Amino acid sequence: MDQEVGGSNPPNCTKIQIMSENKKLNPELPSGFKDRINDELLLRDEIISLIKNNFILNGFDQLETSSFEYSDVIGKFLPDEDRPQSGVFSIKDENDWISLRYDLTAPLARYVAKNYDLLPRPFKRFQVGQVWRNEKPGPGRFREFIQFDIDIVGDSNVQYDADLCLVISDTLNKIGLKNQDFKIRINNRKLLQGLLEDLKIFDYKQIQSTLRAIDKLDRVGIKGVELLLGDGRKDKSGDFTKGAELKKNQIDKIISFLDFKDFNKITPLNEIFREGIKELIVIKNYFELFNFKNFVFDPTVVRGLDYYTGPIFEANLSFTVKNEKNVEIEFGSIGGGGRYDKLVNRFKNLNAPATGFSIGIDRLIYALLQYENLKIKNIIGPIVICNLDEAYLGYYRQILSKLRDANICSEIYLGKNSLKNQIKYADKRKSPYVIICGEDEVKKNEVTIKNLKDTDKVNDATNREDWKSSSKQKKCSIENFLKEIKI
Amino acid sequence: MDQEVGGSNPPNCTKIQIMSENKKLNPELPSGFKDRINDELLLRDEIISLIKNNFILNGFDQLETSSFEYSDVIGKFLPDEDRPQSGVFSIKDENDWISLRYDLTAPLARYVAKNYDLLPRPFKRFQVGQVWRNEKPGPGRFREFIQFDIDIVGDSNVQYDADLCLVISDTLNKIGLKNQDFKIRINNRKLLQGLLEDLKIFDYKQIQSTLRAIDKLDRVGIKGVELLLGDGRKDKSGDFTKGAELKKNQIDKIISFLDFKDFNKITPLNEIFREGIKELIVIKNYFELFNFKNFVFDPTVVRGLDYYTGPIFEANLSFTVKNEKNVEIEFGSIGGGGRYDKLVNRFKNLNAPATGFSIGIDRLIYALLQYENLKIKNIIGPIVICNLDEAYLGYYRQILSKLRDANICSEIYLGKNSLKNQIKYADKRKSPYVIICGEDEVKKNEVTIKNLKDTDKVNDATNREDWKSSSKQKKCSIENFLKEIKI
Repeated sequence: MDQEVGGSNPPNCTKIQIMSENKKLNPELPSGFKDRINDELLLRDEIISLIKNNFILNGFDQLETSSFEYSDVIGKFLPDEDRPQSGVFSIKDENDWISLRYDLTAPLARYVAKNYDLLPRPFKRFQVGQVWRNEKPGPGRFREFIQFDIDIVGDSNVQYDADLCLVISDTLNKIGLKNQDFKIRINNRKLLQGLLEDLKIFDYKQIQSTLRAIDKLDRVGIKGVELLLGDGRKDKSGDFTKGAELKKNQIDKIISFLDFKDFNKITPLNEIFREGIKELIVIKNYFELFNFKNFVFDPTVVRGLDYYTGPIFEANLSFTVKNEKNVEIEFGSIGGGGRYDKLVNRFKNLNAPATGFSIGIDRLIYALLQYENLKIKNIIGPIVICNLDEAYLGYYRQILSKLRDANICSEIYLGKNSLKNQIKYADKRKSPYVIICGEDEVKKNEVTIKNLKDTDKVNDATNREDWKSSSKQKKCSIENFLKEIKI
Repeated sequence: MDQEVGGSNPPNCTKIQIMSENKKLNPELPSGFKDRINDELLLRDEIISLIKNNFILNGFDQLETSSFEYSDVIGKFLPDEDRPQSGVFSIKDENDWISLRYDLTAPLARYVAKNYDLLPRPFKRFQVGQVWRNEKPGPGRFREFIQFDIDIVGDSNVQYDADLCLVISDTLNKIGLKNQDFKIRINNRKLLQGLLEDLKIFDYKQIQSTLRAIDKLDRVGIKGVELLLGDGRKDKSGDFTKGAELKKNQIDKIISFLDFKDFNKITPLNEIFREGIKELIVIKNYFELFNFKNFVFDPTVVRGLDYYTGPIFEANLSFTVKNEKNVEIEFGSIGGGGRYDKLVNRFKNLNAPATGFSIGIDRLIYALLQYENLKIKNIIGPIVICNLDEAYLGYYRQILSKLRDANICSEIYLGKNSLKNQIKYADKRKSPYVIICGEDEVKKNEVTIKNLKDTDKVNDATNREDWKSSSKQKKCSIENFLKEIKI
């Protein structure tokens, strides 16, 4: 790196000057990261604000944990075992390893363990924040993204799980999605656990590959799951994924379990399975009491993270979008969650059973942008006061003050540039108007306002006279010009 | 780490269960990081929203660059040369090094170089975001913090520098600071450069230690600066900082330069110095035109970052706060910035002179919390509907719907707990009211509302009858109870 040039430098050369003479750098981002601009950020700010307000309305407190945690404290619960550092970004810090959080749940467990005695129980908190995953980047897959999470810690009553689903559903309604646009899918890890025990699958790695195989149903179809439960599966690119190596009768039982539509019709296989069914009944009754119909039992829901112990949920958008290949596909999951009763106990033996629901903002916004019912406001740029002569700066200042006092985005163009280029600039900024004042206007205490909205070819006008003769231009007194501004 | 236990596990044991039996983890954060909660976050959200709106009003577009950049792309411009990785958090990513951004300026330069042809010029952008510095943590010094930056790229007119100062000043006003509470201090790196050239100080490392010595004036006083310009200085703890090793006459000239109060009274030493003065005059004239008086020329302003080339500024809070030792001290700098005309040219030879101003949100909020003119709203918790019997859940739901439809934060307590404990919970949540409905209320379609505001000893009441007899309790019909709720 050229900044490392040290020692004695020739006279009159600052470090920066030296650098700029050297080999130029490539202004690219590492893969899996991106820049975001204006329109997307304004929409995101608006959505985050709606989400936060709704969480507060529902009785949740805000928390922000730090981005870094000790690596062992947040653990490795991601399904990416084959990725460097199991999918977590970690750095050696003095004698310890620290990691960027990969979710907002593991840090919450640490926070609760640390502050247990001070917290109300249940502790209901929300957090909106970035998480980082050292995953293999791909189209639409990023290595940092924003999640919003609600969690309830300190009570084992699964009515709280049901309540989280209601809050999330209500929040999706408030940001503009209709009930027919999404569905909450529910399942229970205890059913899966009971099934695996019944099939005598006890090996930890085999349990993992089995759950992961089921989790891939959306992508690989039921035939693909069958292969992944068996010896393995080769994808279209020729890459081979090793399977869970289960026996035929085990695979058959799992596949037939995945086909159940009504948990009341499943015969409980054992105690843990029965417990799982009982919890689902409590949740269903709670939904009925609250007249919530927008859910479905789905035994194929697994959720990737390793810490779940009870009910699990997923929010799925049911409307279709076009993928990179311009094919209509169902949008699918925008997030989920579940009960994780043992996570806080990694720190202390506390009474801290917990449940949480997490949604990814970026995928949600991507969906909203494709969603035809949602009208995105057009960004309106600032009104640009053109700079015809520096001598008039004081006059421009008066105009600027009036605009800003009226809460209208505005600025004086301060560069040395032709009027034509200034108007081109305003056009690029999506300015609704430019204000043009030369000797004539200043003398007469007037203001010329040029409407740029719906103007087809701003660049056609080559000089000031062309602009003046246009019908989209108006002259008025500096006292009254605000009346002509319509944003 | 206990999660790495793999292989064959005993029956009925999930990974999590195994973990919880093992050695417990310590729920601490790495030094230099912290958790933030409710009150602080609500204030911060409000302030960030005010800041963003004001930047938009002033004609700036929003940008968000990613947290990671290629290490060579953002470079190492921090003054922390002695810290690991020069103060930057870096990770080896496949074959490249990537770093967490240490400011919002270096990523902006990369963004401009990448998107130059698409951007309006000048490109006026704001960004609010986290930055990370691998600094030695200390009291009040954190390794991640939020900054808000405004920058104008693509024009060398220093009136834009002046305009940034006006926008920042206006923004501080809008979040509640009065003009007497802060001051913008301005200087020009060209004066410092001219002075160093005049003193024939050309060695890059010596230039650095000289600037760093001046930058420490606030902390070490003028005598300390003298020592740091010479052989070095021993601080109270006995730690020795090596000096710039300048000669006596060089030190004297620098010290007398630092004493100037009016740049018009300094005789220019050379061409670059003269240019610096000229730019300061332009800025001063602009301030006068805009009737902005809240600034002062201060030759001791240096700004730590290595990329500045022209005018530099600092925003200082002038009111006093108490430090850790309970001693009243002037609050000092909350941020600053300056012109960096060569930063984009590290990528391409583009016409992209630039200037920017950056404020640290956390220090600003810390200041605001100590600022007596600013009244912080008290957090109001949710109204808690107590759960006397699950059979009444449907009734509680009706009450909840009415509250939430009226946009009143509220929740049903779903845990199995005594009424006393439920009220204790509400008290801990800072709930203004609890709602208590048992058999009696449900039968008569009534609601009992208990006012918890201004209640001295919530814990004194030991049973429901005590509460009922209190004057702070009211019974009303479920149709009309909302009238009794005053938030």
